[in-house]
Amino acid sequence: MDIELARELAVANDTKIVLFVMDGLGGLPHPDTGRTELESAYTPHMDIIARGAACGFTVPVGPGITPGSGPGHLALFGYDPLRFNIGRGVLEAAGIDFDLQAADVAARGNFCTIDKAGRITDRRAGRIATERCAELTAGLQSIALDGAGLFVEPVREHRFVLVLRPDGRASAGGGQLSADVADTDPQAEGAAPLPPRASAAGGEATAKLVARFVEQAQRYLADKSPANMLLLRGFAKRPDWPSMADVFKLRAAAIACYPMYRGLAKLVGMEALPVGPALADSIATLRENWARYDFFFVHYKYTDSAGEDGDFDRKVAKLEEADSSINALLELGPDVLMIAGDHSTPATMGAHSWHPVPFMLKSRWTRADECDMFGETALQRGSLGAFPAVEALPLALAHAGRLKKYGA
Amino acid sequence: MDIELARELAVANDTKIVLFVMDGLGGLPHPDTGRTELESAYTPHMDIIARGAACGFTVPVGPGITPGSGPGHLALFGYDPLRFNIGRGVLEAAGIDFDLQAADVAARGNFCTIDKAGRITDRRAGRIATERCAELTAGLQSIALDGAGLFVEPVREHRFVLVLRPDGRASAGGGQLSADVADTDPQAEGAAPLPPRASAAGGEATAKLVARFVEQAQRYLADKSPANMLLLRGFAKRPDWPSMADVFKLRAAAIACYPMYRGLAKLVGMEALPVGPALADSIATLRENWARYDFFFVHYKYTDSAGEDGDFDRKVAKLEEADSSINALLELGPDVLMIAGDHSTPATMGAHSWHPVPFMLKSRWTRADECDMFGETALQRGSLGAFPAVEALPLALAHAGRLKKYGA
Repeated sequence: MDIELARELAVANDTKIVLFVMDGLGGLPHPDTGRTELESAYTPHMDIIARGAACGFTVPVGPGITPGSGPGHLALFGYDPLRFNIGRGVLEAAGIDFDLQAADVAARGNFCTIDKAGRITDRRAGRIATERCAELTAGLQSIALDGAGLFVEPVREHRFVLVLRPDGRASAGGGQLSADVADTDPQAEGAAPLPPRASAAGGEATAKLVARFVEQAQRYLADKSPANMLLLRGFAKRPDWPSMADVFKLRAAAIACYPMYRGLAKLVGMEALPVGPALADSIATLRENWARYDFFFVHYKYTDSAGEDGDFDRKVAKLEEADSSINALLELGPDVLMIAGDHSTPATMGAHSWHPVPFMLKSRWTRADECDMFGETALQRGSLGAFPAVEALPLALAHAGRLKKYGA
Repeated sequence: MDIELARELAVANDTKIVLFVMDGLGGLPHPDTGRTELESAYTPHMDIIARGAACGFTVPVGPGITPGSGPGHLALFGYDPLRFNIGRGVLEAAGIDFDLQAADVAARGNFCTIDKAGRITDRRAGRIATERCAELTAGLQSIALDGAGLFVEPVREHRFVLVLRPDGRASAGGGQLSADVADTDPQAEGAAPLPPRASAAGGEATAKLVARFVEQAQRYLADKSPANMLLLRGFAKRPDWPSMADVFKLRAAAIACYPMYRGLAKLVGMEALPVGPALADSIATLRENWARYDFFFVHYKYTDSAGEDGDFDRKVAKLEEADSSINALLELGPDVLMIAGDHSTPATMGAHSWHPVPFMLKSRWTRADECDMFGETALQRGSLGAFPAVEALPLALAHAGRLKKYGA
């Protein structure tokens, strides 16, 4: 269902929908046992749900497409990730909870190391400590540009965000900033950083501002080691997307402790609630805010981290940990509970992958599937099959009585 | 995944992908046994693969749509056959390896028989011998038109190709030829051939050229028997499509002995390798060229021919023959092997059909499906379900590590 049709059909009521996302949920068989992480984990609570739920797999973006965290989540929020595309700069700014304004231009930054000839020897400056990153960004913050204000905010290790904000003066070309600035990051070591250039007509004035920033930054960084230069990429403006309240008639809250997911949730108008890092913290926050929202996105990061590290056993343990919280979640009595993932992160690959992601939806209005457990093999017998992740939210709305009939 | 996104995400690496197409693969149950051709065939090698592959069915064009050879193959090559539509004239020219130029207009021709009143008595002139067809086309080749050069090339039996090529003079309307010329074939016996007319504005000058050709051809054929007239249809220009190298970053080779499939492969930029008619020839060609390409389309025609002839047992035998070559194919060590068909040709129907086509994909990154054999009933338990054939290639690219992550 596209956003326009959803806006036409969605109605408010007093039901509660919970979307529980285990990041990187899907896996691949362990070579010794033939069982995936989820099939190896002892997950009795999820297995019981599977016996009475609508089961299947979400396809995050499309067959064969490995999604990043942005597209993987936007799809589960009901936003087609091929249409609602988000620039890297905005994603990074969202990821540190930076309050990006509509006129701002944001870019992702890397501190890097260059040699005397100006060639990049390490694109990540040895992954400097986050504290060091914060010292350097504080230094860069004092750069003054004629034509725009600027913010240089540390992210993590060598990563930072640069935000340019129009200062109202005309010198940057009518005071407006453009995101049409090409990356300065050549994405290769041995090459020199690229000079900031417009990537399309209209980007020239902003590219000049960026060039002046880079010039001064390079002077400031020259005697710092190993981070003696910076690279910028993914210049982007904040997208002006319709909110979940507007489209789906949902008062939506995000319960996620990682800044990236909070930022993504805010881009679609969710309230990002303060929450601690443990799953118990998430459940407590959910309970405290139960009356105030209709839709809760609960994010569990550690399954993905384990998968990315190629640690099959830790991913299994994290899945078991998640399972042990399911009853506390059910006790709140959601009308619809979706158990989902934003993408697969098979430990055998140690990376995000394109494989469809285990999914189930529990409500009083589901048919009985022939799935006796929540695992990749059993779910192949599910009634939902492998379906586009962007359809999960409309399905939840339907099961919550929140979609009007289409046509007479 | 559309072509534009594929171009953005595809990257080159040193993996090998093999697409083995058994033409007309899919079937229907034999009325006596309830088993399809594929289920009746003893195919131990494919059955073993099925146990460790991602299994399902391809839907060549759309539900209920029976594809011709063109759309069926284009979909497997990753080109949406509803978007990448190919005129009959071009398909015929491709089918005889005719080197069609961008400015040419091609049409499919039939020699036919007309009575004294000018009405068609046999649209195929009794399916005259191919040798006779070649004599007649040689005669027609001497027709001279003011405004275009022409080629009249025999195909098979009563079929030939007419190609008009601009001669650079202005008389055909600025020297350009148009494909907007209506069929002269009324597709019915008892009717007279239709006079060549423009089918859209801009086609008038070319329609006049065609009319002059038909007039002279009719004079030449008047005393020939039974082929004393001709019919033309499917006027078309060569499409200007992006190549598989451009879009998918694949050095692609076709191993197909039938001209039609070679022609189709060349339209998407594949190299059509010389090969003999037996499957052993195909395997030998594959082996010899293994190092030179990334993607191999191996075409096996005889399953379709048997199906078209309504010969259930011969189709079973041809499937068994194909199966016996699978190990030689696996021995080359492809990173991804797809076993597929361009469409179904159930022997009980004796024709192409719309039924989804058995498909499996073997790579080290597939989940374990619950399919214990390669056959229509078992494949219904496959994880891929029935999916658009155009998604098969992106899926193969993903399994070969040839697609970048989408979004951050």
